[in-house]
Amino acid sequence: MNQKMGKASVKPDNPVYILNSASVVGTKEGDGPLGLLFDKVGEDDMFGCKTWEEAESSLQKQAVGLALDKAGLVPEDISFIFAGDLLGQSIATSFGISSFQIPLLGMYGACSTCGESLLLGTMAVAGGFADRVLTVTSSHFASAEKEFRFPLEYGNQRPLSATWTVTGSGAFVLTGDACDGGMKPRARITGATVGKIVDYGLKDSMNMGACMAPAAASTLEQHFVDFAGQPGDYDKIITGDLGKVGRRVLTDLIRDRGYDISEQYMDCGIEIYDGDTQDTHAGGSGCGCSAVTLSAYILKQLQEGSWKKVLFMPTGALLSKTSFNEGMSVPGIAHALVIESV
Amino acid sequence: MNQKMGKASVKPDNPVYILNSASVVGTKEGDGPLGLLFDKVGEDDMFGCKTWEEAESSLQKQAVGLALDKAGLVPEDISFIFAGDLLGQSIATSFGISSFQIPLLGMYGACSTCGESLLLGTMAVAGGFADRVLTVTSSHFASAEKEFRFPLEYGNQRPLSATWTVTGSGAFVLTGDACDGGMKPRARITGATVGKIVDYGLKDSMNMGACMAPAAASTLEQHFVDFAGQPGDYDKIITGDLGKVGRRVLTDLIRDRGYDISEQYMDCGIEIYDGDTQDTHAGGSGCGCSAVTLSAYILKQLQEGSWKKVLFMPTGALLSKTSFNEGMSVPGIAHALVIESV
Repeated sequence: MNQKMGKASVKPDNPVYILNSASVVGTKEGDGPLGLLFDKVGEDDMFGCKTWEEAESSLQKQAVGLALDKAGLVPEDISFIFAGDLLGQSIATSFGISSFQIPLLGMYGACSTCGESLLLGTMAVAGGFADRVLTVTSSHFASAEKEFRFPLEYGNQRPLSATWTVTGSGAFVLTGDACDGGMKPRARITGATVGKIVDYGLKDSMNMGACMAPAAASTLEQHFVDFAGQPGDYDKIITGDLGKVGRRVLTDLIRDRGYDISEQYMDCGIEIYDGDTQDTHAGGSGCGCSAVTLSAYILKQLQEGSWKKVLFMPTGALLSKTSFNEGMSVPGIAHALVIESV
Repeated sequence: MNQKMGKASVKPDNPVYILNSASVVGTKEGDGPLGLLFDKVGEDDMFGCKTWEEAESSLQKQAVGLALDKAGLVPEDISFIFAGDLLGQSIATSFGISSFQIPLLGMYGACSTCGESLLLGTMAVAGGFADRVLTVTSSHFASAEKEFRFPLEYGNQRPLSATWTVTGSGAFVLTGDACDGGMKPRARITGATVGKIVDYGLKDSMNMGACMAPAAASTLEQHFVDFAGQPGDYDKIITGDLGKVGRRVLTDLIRDRGYDISEQYMDCGIEIYDGDTQDTHAGGSGCGCSAVTLSAYILKQLQEGSWKKVLFMPTGALLSKTSFNEGMSVPGIAHALVIESV
């Protein structure tokens, strides 16, 4: 029986498998420490399109196409697609994946959307409502700067607490079959914790790590409580895009609640760029950051047996330019998934 | 056993019940034909707030609070909340429901979000992952005009094909228990069809009905195929906000595919205003339109036995000002739910 665990968590009766996945990134990500691991690196960040938004749509389209190819599937093999991005009304998704003609459930959880879509995809498969689902999220540095801060042409300076939005998209095929198409899956999802909105009243859109860290601490603590768990249960506890500032805030906040995660802790935003040479300041961020790092790096470690079990927790800052201009805070949210090797 | 039905539909093994619900609307909706049925009508459309966006957040907060009260529940009784709105990065939701501290799964499906959230809430409950969930969506005339078209101060003229965004929010408590808290539920959800993006290339943001009707036709046809059904299976087939133009397009398109829905067809956007006296042109629209009409009117008919079984199909136009300004089309999407009397 599928179960609700504690206050905010779920546990499928049988694991849901990540059959295969794909990552497509831009040039800066290709030049970073994980560069060689991505499935596809664009020649430039326009990806042959006329606008930044179209370029981001193209990222999603390529990631979905590649994930299907790698899983040996065609769009008709997928029941539903769970997808989202950071742009207003999720237009990267609307124009990115429509050609596949897969029934769509659109998500919005800011940069936590990668976690949210995997979580709801897991529920759909484990609940018996779908044989296979696909999840995809994306972000693009230039479309995000235009959406949330300043157009690139303005050339504004970025403080050291700012993160650099990852140009990238990650797509995942989930299945309930441990040997779907005779293929060994990349990993399995065995539990999840749904986050709530946490708002410490911070208003700095150039310090998203600090805005999101309290939400990450809340979800992490709830996860440990719901599963009667400890940091040591995991080889890695991985946030999406807290960056260097958010990392400190999270480790402090969760230590105050009785959990020391310093040995297990890792952040996709810190892994994806070389902060010393790539001028990315606090690290990477965006809906694509955790998605491409999961596909290219984390699942690889799980497949190779370097890690057996991780807690993957994409973090989202619920920022908009309208609320920012109206003087509102930047609330955070984070969703966590237990991902284990097969 | 929960099942996938056909290509795009799901059928829970046991029905999921709408335990209770609430609707909160603005003055214009209060003056309309359904005015007396809404739970709460605001004194003015600012709802005591400083900005239109805050006013919309307040609508969500009131609808959720009222739905909980009517169901005799407190926030701790709810496992997850599925929520969304039309604004960029769903800020009406982010700032509207955070005080309830319920784990949140954020949705984006434009005006179809009411259907999407009920559908995913149904999966969560029927899948065994939650005892009770809450779904809520909202829209606000003034925040939507600012987000998508022109600020109200500009005083632009509206063509007759334009719809009027409903100021309103509807919230629904879903449960798997047919007698939760000893209360007879308002209705039950017994099936659903997930829509895909359909894009006929229309670019007129002042004619959303025509943009969405092809998606409604696609979902409706798929629904009939997946459930081996016919229009006559339903007392009413109800779209969210196609309005008078979209109604014609949908009935024509679906007739071409062999289904005559003229006897059963109804549109929430047409019901909610008096087109002759309220200057709303083609009808009402928005994430709140189908939600408040479902809560106040449709569920009432099902409770009173006037109708036994309806197909409720909120329709969404995947418009954004960025994609509009870049010359892109307005794709549509629609999700359908089978809702029956208890």
